[in-house]
Amino acid sequence: MELVTTDICIIGAGPVGLFAVFEAGLLKMRCHLIDVLPQVGGQLSEIYPQKPIYDIPGFPTINAQQLVDGLMEQIQPFHPGFSLAERVNELFQLEDGSFVTRTSDDTEVHSKVVVIAGGLGCFEPRKPVIDGLEQFEGKGVAYMVKNPEAYRGRKVVLAGGGDSALDWTIFLADIAEEVTLIHRGDTFRGAPDSAEKVFELATEGKINLILQSHINAIKGNGHLQQVEVIGRDNETTVIEADHLIPLFGLTPKLGPIAEWGLNVDKSAIMVDTVDYSTNVKGVYAIGDINIYPGKLKLILCGFHEAALMAQSAFKHVYPDQKLSFKYTTVYGVTAF
Amino acid sequence: MELVTTDICIIGAGPVGLFAVFEAGLLKMRCHLIDVLPQVGGQLSEIYPQKPIYDIPGFPTINAQQLVDGLMEQIQPFHPGFSLAERVNELFQLEDGSFVTRTSDDTEVHSKVVVIAGGLGCFEPRKPVIDGLEQFEGKGVAYMVKNPEAYRGRKVVLAGGGDSALDWTIFLADIAEEVTLIHRGDTFRGAPDSAEKVFELATEGKINLILQSHINAIKGNGHLQQVEVIGRDNETTVIEADHLIPLFGLTPKLGPIAEWGLNVDKSAIMVDTVDYSTNVKGVYAIGDINIYPGKLKLILCGFHEAALMAQSAFKHVYPDQKLSFKYTTVYGVTAF
Ligand SMILES: Cc1cc2nc3c(=O)[nH]c(=O)nc-3n(C[C@H](O)[C@H](O)[C@H](O)COP(=O)(O)OP(=O)(O)OC[C@H]3O[C@@H](n4cnc5c(N)ncnc54)[C@H](O)[C@@H]3O)c2cc1C
Ligand SMILES: Cc1cc2nc3c(=O)[nH]c(=O)nc-3n(C[C@H](O)[C@H](O)[C@H](O)COP(=O)(O)OP(=O)(O)OC[C@H]3O[C@@H](n4cnc5c(N)ncnc54)[C@H](O)[C@@H]3O)c2cc1C
Repeated sequence: MELVTTDICIIGAGPVGLFAVFEAGLLKMRCHLIDVLPQVGGQLSEIYPQKPIYDIPGFPTINAQQLVDGLMEQIQPFHPGFSLAERVNELFQLEDGSFVTRTSDDTEVHSKVVVIAGGLGCFEPRKPVIDGLEQFEGKGVAYMVKNPEAYRGRKVVLAGGGDSALDWTIFLADIAEEVTLIHRGDTFRGAPDSAEKVFELATEGKINLILQSHINAIKGNGHLQQVEVIGRDNETTVIEADHLIPLFGLTPKLGPIAEWGLNVDKSAIMVDTVDYSTNVKGVYAIGDINIYPGKLKLILCGFHEAALMAQSAFKHVYPDQKLSFKYTTVYGVTAF
Repeated sequence: MELVTTDICIIGAGPVGLFAVFEAGLLKMRCHLIDVLPQVGGQLSEIYPQKPIYDIPGFPTINAQQLVDGLMEQIQPFHPGFSLAERVNELFQLEDGSFVTRTSDDTEVHSKVVVIAGGLGCFEPRKPVIDGLEQFEGKGVAYMVKNPEAYRGRKVVLAGGGDSALDWTIFLADIAEEVTLIHRGDTFRGAPDSAEKVFELATEGKINLILQSHINAIKGNGHLQQVEVIGRDNETTVIEADHLIPLFGLTPKLGPIAEWGLNVDKSAIMVDTVDYSTNVKGVYAIGDINIYPGKLKLILCGFHEAALMAQSAFKHVYPDQKLSFKYTTVYGVTAF
């Protein structure tokens, strides 16, 4: 639980939320960003960090993560605050017109303006279909490894075939008492190096590797105790386990944003292209999360939206001040 | 005189016109660009090539000319055509709805779509106030050096105190029979190196340098013959001259664009933000030249406008084809 007061609370630290900090900063407004992911960069860092993007103006090609790094350097002079690995659940307006944004960790951000840069929505884990899975969440079942030390000396079952499953299997092999990796196929989607390492660990007897299998049931008395696995020939194996970590990737969901009284169309927030404001004065929506006639879900469009939003947000925060339009080339960037 | 047929004729090769080639290229449309300046890059290359810009997303800082170079590299796969140092004077529509754009050199571009990316307008020379100056234009008086060889063995007077005046004085010193530089002040605004070189040439007697003076009158019989200069103490000097080149910089003027039947407000073309189309179907206006509610004259805004324009232009060129939205990261860039 943390209390933050700032000019603009930005929900979503994807490329568009990050650039909004810059446009706000030019107008001397401070920002605090919240993202459910443990890292900044939105879809770019989560889905395709090492892939080249070709349509960022001025860069014939740039890797997604490089673009995120460039944006982080660009906004550095304006020292934004960050609450990462926290999901925004509630947004409400106080009597004086200002806003409170509250997260899953009870962080409360108090601000005059809220900018929703939530992209395709909150990244949520893809959950396997297992009876009673949700009732063990927080009681042995988790979909992300937040603190590896929590697994020291415990029996851990991981499931999945991508990079996260491979990487955490290798990492936890040194920490946990027993590590089992369950995977539907017999080859892995993740990096070949990591797959090789996992096969090695299995050969050396340092982990249990169960291929061509899937989890059928989980059992326990208040806390997880057993994971039941079914193989190709329908044979069943029961594994004693304190923890189950299904790692089937993250998928974005509009989630709580839908419940804040904003006009929504096709899972996107309707905005006015004059300033990308929503139907609630003081709340803006920019980037993939918004919709308007002609909308394209492109990074470069989100940048434009951020610039127009900032002008309007300034007028909202300082209704009595005159805003004069200035070129960065002529006036530079004044850090604060 | 040249005849060109293409999908899109782009008037103005500033950053926004250049990026429009990229967005059109992704949709497999070909472009031809026309600019009155001898080089691409618009305001960036003409006014502030070596100055840093801080608000191009992803670049914490980038020199204006570097941004132009990056854009040129980015559009290279789509091989745009260029008509530089030509001014667009006329735009008219044929019966089949297509357009003809005609330049000062009688180049005619025939296209289905016209994109006006004319910035603050056509860069025109700032002319000094001298009686009868215009009657000697093309008859000894010129405001740009297009072909230095034209001055071989001739008597040339230059006027001005900036980089162009210094650079051309130095360059022509080797070519012309006699070079005189006239400047109002006694120090130069141009690069210190160039100023030093000009003072050296004057000391060596290779050029005539007349400081703290201005041109009072010009004379000739059909062609320029004499330039009359007035100094600080009102003394008059008469210089025999075949050529006078006043170099007082270029300033943008809306010019012919105002006469094409487009809805114009405050020297800018009114557009619809759905696709940045003008009141004439098939004609779009993007970048500094357009106006709409919320408009900011920023480079990054022009990029967004180019992207939305291209989608609409595609539908105009291929009314029967379906356009599916594709990410460059996923589908790459297909050169043609
Ligand atoms: C494979 C792929 C290739 C692509 N290629 C291109 C391309 O070549 N060019 C291009 O322009 N675009 C491309 N895109 C699209 C581009 O990634 C998006 O346009 C861009 O990420 C949008 O940025 P954003 O900041 O609006 O949202 P996002 O990047 O989606 O970031 C939004 C962030 O908000 C967070 N969030 C949402 N709701 C909450 C909440 N309630 N609480 C806390 N956090 C929340 C999310 O976790 C996320 O991190 C591609 C996308 C994909 C998937
Ligand atoms: C000193 C200065 C600093 C700036 N700093 C910044 C900054 O930090 N950030 C930012 O985003 N912006 C900045 N700008 C503004 C930026 O330069 C413009 O937004 C940008 O140049 C607009 O691009 P454009 O392609 O629309 O037009 P332009 O760059 O103006 O290019 C238009 C071109 O069209 C040509 N043209 C016009 N009419 C005709 C015709 N009839 N025939 C032939 N050619 C024609 C012109 O010659 C010109 O080359 C600055 C501008 C200046 C002057």
